[in-house]
Amino acid sequence: MPAEPVSEQIGPRLERVAIIGLGLMGGSIAAAIKARNMASVVTAFDLAPDELAQGLSLGVIDEAASSVAEAVRLADLVVIAVPVLAIESLLIEIGNSASTSAIITDVGSVKSSIIEAARRQVPKLLPRIIPGHPIAGSEQHGVQAANANLFVRHKVILTALLETEPASLALVKAFWVQLGADVVEMTPAHHDAVLAQTSHLPHLLAYALIDTLSMQGDSLEIFEYAAGGLRDFSRIAASDPVMWRDIYQANSGPVLEILDRYMKELLVLRQLIESGRSTELTEVLTRAKLARDHFSVLLSQRDQPYNTKEKP
Amino acid sequence: MPAEPVSEQIGPRLERVAIIGLGLMGGSIAAAIKARNMASVVTAFDLAPDELAQGLSLGVIDEAASSVAEAVRLADLVVIAVPVLAIESLLIEIGNSASTSAIITDVGSVKSSIIEAARRQVPKLLPRIIPGHPIAGSEQHGVQAANANLFVRHKVILTALLETEPASLALVKAFWVQLGADVVEMTPAHHDAVLAQTSHLPHLLAYALIDTLSMQGDSLEIFEYAAGGLRDFSRIAASDPVMWRDIYQANSGPVLEILDRYMKELLVLRQLIESGRSTELTEVLTRAKLARDHFSVLLSQRDQPYNTKEKP
Repeated sequence: MPAEPVSEQIGPRLERVAIIGLGLMGGSIAAAIKARNMASVVTAFDLAPDELAQGLSLGVIDEAASSVAEAVRLADLVVIAVPVLAIESLLIEIGNSASTSAIITDVGSVKSSIIEAARRQVPKLLPRIIPGHPIAGSEQHGVQAANANLFVRHKVILTALLETEPASLALVKAFWVQLGADVVEMTPAHHDAVLAQTSHLPHLLAYALIDTLSMQGDSLEIFEYAAGGLRDFSRIAASDPVMWRDIYQANSGPVLEILDRYMKELLVLRQLIESGRSTELTEVLTRAKLARDHFSVLLSQRDQPYNTKEKP
Repeated sequence: MPAEPVSEQIGPRLERVAIIGLGLMGGSIAAAIKARNMASVVTAFDLAPDELAQGLSLGVIDEAASSVAEAVRLADLVVIAVPVLAIESLLIEIGNSASTSAIITDVGSVKSSIIEAARRQVPKLLPRIIPGHPIAGSEQHGVQAANANLFVRHKVILTALLETEPASLALVKAFWVQLGADVVEMTPAHHDAVLAQTSHLPHLLAYALIDTLSMQGDSLEIFEYAAGGLRDFSRIAASDPVMWRDIYQANSGPVLEILDRYMKELLVLRQLIESGRSTELTEVLTRAKLARDHFSVLLSQRDQPYNTKEKP
């Protein structure tokens, strides 16, 4: 699918963009920049040399750097696309290498803990760090699944800091708009609470269900009789365990808060079933269905493909 | 899609089949019988006259009966396709109307409570009642969504009783095989435990999640940021609340048992997150992912379409 035509005026023209972490997200950002001719050079660094080689041969990047320092040297914009808990040490490395004018953004699924790390470790970079989180993704992995239109009509949340330079924020905003995204700004804490509810908790519930069932007697048999209900959960539990471990560690507060509310609701439903209070049970199920129907209308208005899988 | 060609010899040739409840399931069974020319007459009764009229105009049934008694009179085979808690009174009505030779089966999502009701209310029919449950369905509703191939390569669970006549069981088995299904036999209690785990619990968890989130602050905003994780849950919570109320009431024992195990697992995960025991957390997430990957292989071997939604 070719990139949507975008007028060059709406976004910045960059000399040099550095992508750190060339997986699906980093690769898709690189591909999107190339497809829209938004930068003279796209360079990347990844711990896996294979990904870099593939990125070069796919034409997704122009240069493969052999270190973080080499990648970010002279870059106008640095995009960090690595697992959440790897970001802190990366920021230190960038702080030691990048030119003072480089603007830095990321695609991490948790924002507060990254910002705290930046404030602790690289205070001099704060005016030019614009934390971001594109709510887009795919069930596929790696740069070979890079998609120049991954962000088109998807939300990108930016969580600017008090220290943020307006010009840096404006550049990162314009950058994502040029990639086709709908940019939304919110506080880091609000982002983390919203994502805990819409993504982190659902994934935890799915992992817990699959694990509970697989520990039951003949689990093979259980899964043989699984159909839609379990299958939808199962799809969610396919994600990378280490990435999710990072997320639960980095966003434990908001996750535990919504998990506790959820467990209270489960206890209420348990009571209604045990005591046969069927009118109240019907009320709760109906309320949930109405909320779901409302949500469904929202989604269809957003005109997103049904099978889009979010990045956490 | 035309019905798969099936040799006539493998199944029974019936004179008269009566479908009670002409929704998606009843309608699909009727359509499958007609498409395979398995009976001389397919008649149906439904509380909604519209469904019957539509069934006639679609050619899914030959006759619309104006009462249960009229539908089942002279039938060789009666198929009950109504919500679980409506089956008991229907069995009484059939007991008062059907010829003594009619074989009776159903498609209810819970088996033990239906069998207890039959034993209590219509003991004379027991030798010819073959409780059944096709693990197939669709997100669509009503006879207009009837699909003659809905059961092809899907499991149908039969839970014969001690009193069951071998010839009646053989006929119902051959009937489903002719509809393209894989017939499996198990005890009613085992069926109810398996379905509690693979279908009833996942639906409860999804209803609870959507309800919990919709009660949070500005729920509209939450759903705007929802992507894959929440979307998969949301799809499950679209089902009919009254149908599910019935299921939770009729299968409360097995549902509460697996719900309690699930809540214990959630508490363990909660502890691991709260105390930052990241190695153990990774272990649980990895175990779940491996079980899921195993399940995924099983599913692809079964060669089912990915988006098939089960009937609960």
